[in-house]
Amino acid sequence: MDWQKVLDEIAQEIQPELGVGKVADYIPALSAADPKAFGMAVTTVKGECYRTGDAGVPFSIQSISKVLTLTIALGFENEDLFDRVGREPSGSAFNSIVQLEQEQGIPRNPFINAGAIIVTDTIITHCRQKAGADLILDLARKLSCSPRVRIDDEVARSEALWGNRNRSLAYFMKSFGVLQNDPEEVLQAYFCQCALEMTCQELARAGLYLANDGVDPVTNQQIATHAHVNRINALMMTCGHYDMSGDFAFHVGLPGKSGVGGGILAVVPGICSVAVWSPALNKAGNSHAGTMALELFSEKTSLNLF
Amino acid sequence: MDWQKVLDEIAQEIQPELGVGKVADYIPALSAADPKAFGMAVTTVKGECYRTGDAGVPFSIQSISKVLTLTIALGFENEDLFDRVGREPSGSAFNSIVQLEQEQGIPRNPFINAGAIIVTDTIITHCRQKAGADLILDLARKLSCSPRVRIDDEVARSEALWGNRNRSLAYFMKSFGVLQNDPEEVLQAYFCQCALEMTCQELARAGLYLANDGVDPVTNQQIATHAHVNRINALMMTCGHYDMSGDFAFHVGLPGKSGVGGGILAVVPGICSVAVWSPALNKAGNSHAGTMALELFSEKTSLNLF
Amino acid sequence: MDWQKVLDEIAQEIQPELGVGKVADYIPALSAADPKAFGMAVTTVKGECYRTGDAGVPFSIQSISKVLTLTIALGFENEDLFDRVGREPSGSAFNSIVQLEQEQGIPRNPFINAGAIIVTDTIITHCRQKAGADLILDLARKLSCSPRVRIDDEVARSEALWGNRNRSLAYFMKSFGVLQNDPEEVLQAYFCQCALEMTCQELARAGLYLANDGVDPVTNQQIATHAHVNRINALMMTCGHYDMSGDFAFHVGLPGKSGVGGGILAVVPGICSVAVWSPALNKAGNSHAGTMALELFSEKTSLNLF
Amino acid sequence: MDWQKVLDEIAQEIQPELGVGKVADYIPALSAADPKAFGMAVTTVKGECYRTGDAGVPFSIQSISKVLTLTIALGFENEDLFDRVGREPSGSAFNSIVQLEQEQGIPRNPFINAGAIIVTDTIITHCRQKAGADLILDLARKLSCSPRVRIDDEVARSEALWGNRNRSLAYFMKSFGVLQNDPEEVLQAYFCQCALEMTCQELARAGLYLANDGVDPVTNQQIATHAHVNRINALMMTCGHYDMSGDFAFHVGLPGKSGVGGGILAVVPGICSVAVWSPALNKAGNSHAGTMALELFSEKTSLNLF
Repeated sequence: MDWQKVLDEIAQEIQPELGVGKVADYIPALSAADPKAFGMAVTTVKGECYRTGDAGVPFSIQSISKVLTLTIALGFENEDLFDRVGREPSGSAFNSIVQLEQEQGIPRNPFINAGAIIVTDTIITHCRQKAGADLILDLARKLSCSPRVRIDDEVARSEALWGNRNRSLAYFMKSFGVLQNDPEEVLQAYFCQCALEMTCQELARAGLYLANDGVDPVTNQQIATHAHVNRINALMMTCGHYDMSGDFAFHVGLPGKSGVGGGILAVVPGICSVAVWSPALNKAGNSHAGTMALELFSEKTSLNLF
Repeated sequence: MDWQKVLDEIAQEIQPELGVGKVADYIPALSAADPKAFGMAVTTVKGECYRTGDAGVPFSIQSISKVLTLTIALGFENEDLFDRVGREPSGSAFNSIVQLEQEQGIPRNPFINAGAIIVTDTIITHCRQKAGADLILDLARKLSCSPRVRIDDEVARSEALWGNRNRSLAYFMKSFGVLQNDPEEVLQAYFCQCALEMTCQELARAGLYLANDGVDPVTNQQIATHAHVNRINALMMTCGHYDMSGDFAFHVGLPGKSGVGGGILAVVPGICSVAVWSPALNKAGNSHAGTMALELFSEKTSLNLF
Repeated sequence: MDWQKVLDEIAQEIQPELGVGKVADYIPALSAADPKAFGMAVTTVKGECYRTGDAGVPFSIQSISKVLTLTIALGFENEDLFDRVGREPSGSAFNSIVQLEQEQGIPRNPFINAGAIIVTDTIITHCRQKAGADLILDLARKLSCSPRVRIDDEVARSEALWGNRNRSLAYFMKSFGVLQNDPEEVLQAYFCQCALEMTCQELARAGLYLANDGVDPVTNQQIATHAHVNRINALMMTCGHYDMSGDFAFHVGLPGKSGVGGGILAVVPGICSVAVWSPALNKAGNSHAGTMALELFSEKTSLNLF
Repeated sequence: MDWQKVLDEIAQEIQPELGVGKVADYIPALSAADPKAFGMAVTTVKGECYRTGDAGVPFSIQSISKVLTLTIALGFENEDLFDRVGREPSGSAFNSIVQLEQEQGIPRNPFINAGAIIVTDTIITHCRQKAGADLILDLARKLSCSPRVRIDDEVARSEALWGNRNRSLAYFMKSFGVLQNDPEEVLQAYFCQCALEMTCQELARAGLYLANDGVDPVTNQQIATHAHVNRINALMMTCGHYDMSGDFAFHVGLPGKSGVGGGILAVVPGICSVAVWSPALNKAGNSHAGTMALELFSEKTSLNLF
């Protein structure tokens, strides 16, 4: 496969889609992003890296961090984690509190906000708050082989300031006894993980273990068990794109996780990890151009799993 | 791969699970099934067939027929079909009318009852009711290479008699103008397709085009386009098991579609099609032993897509 | 009290509100109504009648008929009726099927469509369909002392033709086993009662027993027990105006029941019965000018119960 | 009317109902109440007081305080208050967050928790937190003519400690921009008002202005306008008993407001105010014996408004 050619073609063909949609504006730090920015990177299980456009520009990975925290929490608790969070698609908006009420405070899956807060809660149970946030940052740095990766403090503060919906979710789950730790403590760590700043290149590199049964193929480190990686990829496939997860599976056919910062991480098991970034979002909150770029990628490479 | 050995091992290991759960009893015709029956069949893209247990016993395929009708309707309408039915997981019980109300009569996906009724409605729009039911039966016979395949009239009559929930769904969608034809006419065809009777062996054979990019590898007939098959498999992965679709992806990692008759059809793209049958259902309405047999299959063969 | 002066003042002051809102247009027969028509009539427990405007013009009483059918059904079943229908405000749109699902096919109260269908079902259980519709018409004629009162066949046919939402509700309740009779049979009687055609004067006269503890004060006939009238008036207060019942209690402070034909029947216990009609509806489906006229009435007469 | 005889008869006849149901146990301070306690008091608009049983025993009035805060907030804002809180029955559990989401953070009425938090928020907007709580206490003391009335600090602390559901509601409304002040500040005042401790005698005395068009008939002080009292009573009638408000109107036919401490305040416009207390609750969270005592009261006195 001529990966570079694929990326170059995509970068070319995606031009008319750049800027279509709307940059996230619920916090000032995100709203400043250039709606027409576009970057994409592929890292193969052989360790080769390919990139195009703004693949070296750092952006807020936001919900993509939920993949990293799920990896850590599964390491701590194994499938016991699923006593407190489900693994079914949610069928409604990503921050919906309705389903949470109908299901007695148990979030539907680890990729909606409520579920990710439970995942972070689990990490904190095992290693305290400050250590929890550090653990996530350390993992992101280790996986991306990039000490540059950082938590953007301004974004984290902004998230905390505008985080009343998440605060409501946390107290709601606390009232059901599902959340184990102090809601404010958990939220602080949660807001930090959302504020992780990475480039496409770093993100594609970081996701490589998901394409290689849990082992980083370059360092040979075991990041997660084979079974855990199967589960994480399955969740990315069924729940990775809010209320357009079905649509993503339908058009791209790969496990993927998006964030409101405009990034998407996708995985081709056994082959490669792909990261794309373009800040303007479709109405479900996923990068418009990013989603289309991955559809082109899937078509051009025939790497659709189905 | 020694497929026969895999099937024999599964048949052995699944013994303790047979009879766990509850046979569907909403119509008499289904409640008579032996809860401990178990059959399984694999057909590879090379055309080889392997089977174990009751793989030659006919059973009511019920909702698995939704895969066949979706194939026909996509052939008629292409992606226009998705103007009247979504492609997102439903996140609630398979016959829920709640989401249908919130979403103005547009069902979430073609595999919940409301969505499948729309799919059947589409077929009737293109070829009238009687012809519609015949078309589905003809396709089932052609794909399974088995003229024995039939519609069980007693089951069809029973479905009609006890079909008030589906009738309610149909009139509801009619009131929104989403259903195009007369509700009773559509329901008659719908109840017939649910009453299709096949064996595991026939079903595995019939699903082979889904494992081979739309082409029946034995007859070389094009049953569906490559793109349509990608879409159908994606929908089976995200929506194929009612409110346990996420769980099935999580544990089995293959596209699959279950029916309340206790059957499941699963697909391994590029490799094979698998059918399993055991009538006792788990609480989401999927075959308990069938689901576990496919989990064993996925583990033993490492054919989990993720 | 100078009732005529009150009515004349209201007829004067209401002028700017006539035509504000939207005439019901879900069936042709209703959409033809003059949006600026306005009539009002009061009948006191002494048997005096006062009227203004179009109080002699017949209109489709629609959901106001639910008060009459509830009276009949309570006579047949007493409080046993409430095993199959609740008595709580619904908190959502009048034809919502969502609550019906959450509450296992038991409608919230007898004044939402689903509940009224159960009430009609009860009448049919006691006296067969044709007889049921006749019983309702007979009661309307007897109470209004007007043999002119009739069922508008065109409206009834129109209701049946456009009644798929109600049909959906009926089959839904049938699927839960809550509806006792054949859905189509019940719906025929239900569509007939909705098509009752009365004038304000007839309607005010017909409602008089509700202001006099169940006894028609002119004929001295016992139409309902004292306890039943307490219950009917309570339901009119809490549930009589769809999702603006609270608002009506808030601004008018009297038991009332509205219909999409633009009519409202209100009761002042111990004093009088009031009917008003003006076809243009507010967004909750109640007569805009009719509601405001009753608010003026309540203010001018200080007959607000609170 | 021989009020004392009525009360004595009720106290006698209610005996078998005492202890039926379940004392609120979500906070320790409430769970200690004697399930068989029973008190009842009537204050007439002539200023006469009648009492029976434990009418002099202080109890936690809980949600009954919502009537007092609504009175204060209406005084500050008039009907502008209803821009941020509705006046429709909720049709679901009193602390439900589902409707709040569907209706964009606007609570359905001032008597569900979310709505009462908005009412308290309004008071704080006009007079700061500490002053707000003081204002409520002062009003309770003034209306009851009893300086003994106090806020039970232990209950208030307990409410705060176990108040995560209310905290979730407050942050939820904050995220929609409906709540004006700091959620924690509003909640502190809210928890204090819930912890108001009064006797039946004090409560009946305090509610007298609601039976007399807003004027305390003994002191001749105007507590609320005539129109505001009409509105408050209407809300008590349609929304005063959580998801059994319709049932209360149906069986008692009087405006009333209950609290999980087992108290109920009911109003007979023009005649009297009634308070009853018995801690064991029915499944909707209203005093079981208290509700039945008021039904007896309504029957014996024929003071049912309908």
